[in-house]
Amino acid sequence: MTITVFGDSMSPFSRNLYYVLKELGLSHEIAQQNNPEEIKTPEYLATKHPFGKIPYLDDDEFHIYETRAIARYLINKYKGTKTSTILIPSDVQKAALMEQFISVETSYYTPPLIKMVGPLALKKLHGNEPDLKIVNEAREELEKTLDVYEKLLEGKDYLIGEFSLADLLHVPLTFYAFRVGEGELWNKRPNVSRWWKNISERESWKNIVIEHKSI
Amino acid sequence: MTITVFGDSMSPFSRNLYYVLKELGLSHEIAQQNNPEEIKTPEYLATKHPFGKIPYLDDDEFHIYETRAIARYLINKYKGTKTSTILIPSDVQKAALMEQFISVETSYYTPPLIKMVGPLALKKLHGNEPDLKIVNEAREELEKTLDVYEKLLEGKDYLIGEFSLADLLHVPLTFYAFRVGEGELWNKRPNVSRWWKNISERESWKNIVIEHKSI
Repeated sequence: MTITVFGDSMSPFSRNLYYVLKELGLSHEIAQQNNPEEIKTPEYLATKHPFGKIPYLDDDEFHIYETRAIARYLINKYKGTKTSTILIPSDVQKAALMEQFISVETSYYTPPLIKMVGPLALKKLHGNEPDLKIVNEAREELEKTLDVYEKLLEGKDYLIGEFSLADLLHVPLTFYAFRVGEGELWNKRPNVSRWWKNISERESWKNIVIEHKSI
Repeated sequence: MTITVFGDSMSPFSRNLYYVLKELGLSHEIAQQNNPEEIKTPEYLATKHPFGKIPYLDDDEFHIYETRAIARYLINKYKGTKTSTILIPSDVQKAALMEQFISVETSYYTPPLIKMVGPLALKKLHGNEPDLKIVNEAREELEKTLDVYEKLLEGKDYLIGEFSLADLLHVPLTFYAFRVGEGELWNKRPNVSRWWKNISERESWKNIVIEHKSI
C-alpha cells in the first residue's frame, strides 16, 4: 500500500491532508510540487486534477482530488486501523453537524481568511506590498464570522463537542494567520481562543510545523 | 416524524432539498420564508441559521443548516426506507468520487453560475438592468468549467457513473440558467447536454417544477 500526496508542503490545503494522515497514523509519501507551471500542463490536467490545482492523492492507483473529499476518503477508509482517532463520527446526527461545520468553514471562514492571509504571506515571503483595502475588507468579514464562532463555541471544546474533521480543516490556514501577525483576532475571543488551542496543540499538527518550512 | 424545510420555494438551494426529499420519497412540510428581513432577526440567527441564510431543516427537533450538509444527513438517515434511490453510494471509492464532484460543483460550477444567473433572474422577475460586465465575465468562467465537464463526462451518463447527490446538486441552479435563456451553454456540448437531460428529466424534479412557481 502506497499513499502519495502530490502537493506543496507550504500550502494550507496540502497541510490539511498531512494533518489527517498523521492523525490516522498512516505512512505516506509526499510528492512536492516545485513549479507552478507544472499543474497547468495538459498531462497534469488530464491525469491529476482537471482544474489545475493541488493537492491530489494517489492511494495504490486510486486517484482523487479536492482536499475535503480526499480527507473524507482517507478517514472513511482507514479510521481506526492504526490509531484510535475517529475524525468522522459514526452517529448520523453528529456526522451531520460535522458536515454542517465543514460547510460553514468552506463558505464563511476560509474565503475571507485566504483573502486576508494571502497578501500578507506574500509580503512576508517576497516583500510584495499588499493591497491594504482588500486585506482590511477581508479582516472585517472575518471578524463577523469569528463573532458567530464565539457564540457557536460557547461551552464547547470543539465544534461538534469532540475533535473532528470540521475542526481540523480550520488549522493550517489559521496557523498562517498567526504567522503573519493576525493572531489577536482569535486570542481576543475567549471561546474561539480556547478552541484554537485545542485544535492546534495536538502532537500531529505540532510535528507538521516542525517537519515543514512555514512562512 | 415531521420533517420541515424552512426555505424559499424559488431558491435553488431550497430546491436541492425538495429534490432530495422527493427522491427519497419522504413527506415533508415547507415553511416558506416570505420576508427577507425574517432571516436576519436575532431570533432566527440564534435558533435557525447563525449566518442568516436559508434553507434550514427541522427533523423531529433535530436542527441543521447548510444545504449540502442537510442533503447528506437526509440521505444517510433515510435512504432505502421509502424508495430504492441511494444518492450516496456505500462503496468507499465511489463515495469518495461523489464527494470530489460535490467539491467541484461547490468550487468551480456554482460560483460563476450564480454570478451569471442572479442578475439575469432579477431582470426577468423585476426588470432590473443587469451589470453585463459581471454577467459576461461569469459566463466566460462558466464556459471554462463546462469545457472541463465535457471531458469528465466522456462516455458517462452521470459524474460517478450512476446518479448521485453530486449530480442532483447541479440541477436547480442550472434549470434557472435555462429559464433566463442561457441553455445553449449546456446544449452545445454533447456530453454535458446528455448529462443534463439525465439529471433534469427525472420524475421527482419534473414534479418540483410543476408544484412551485419558477422565474
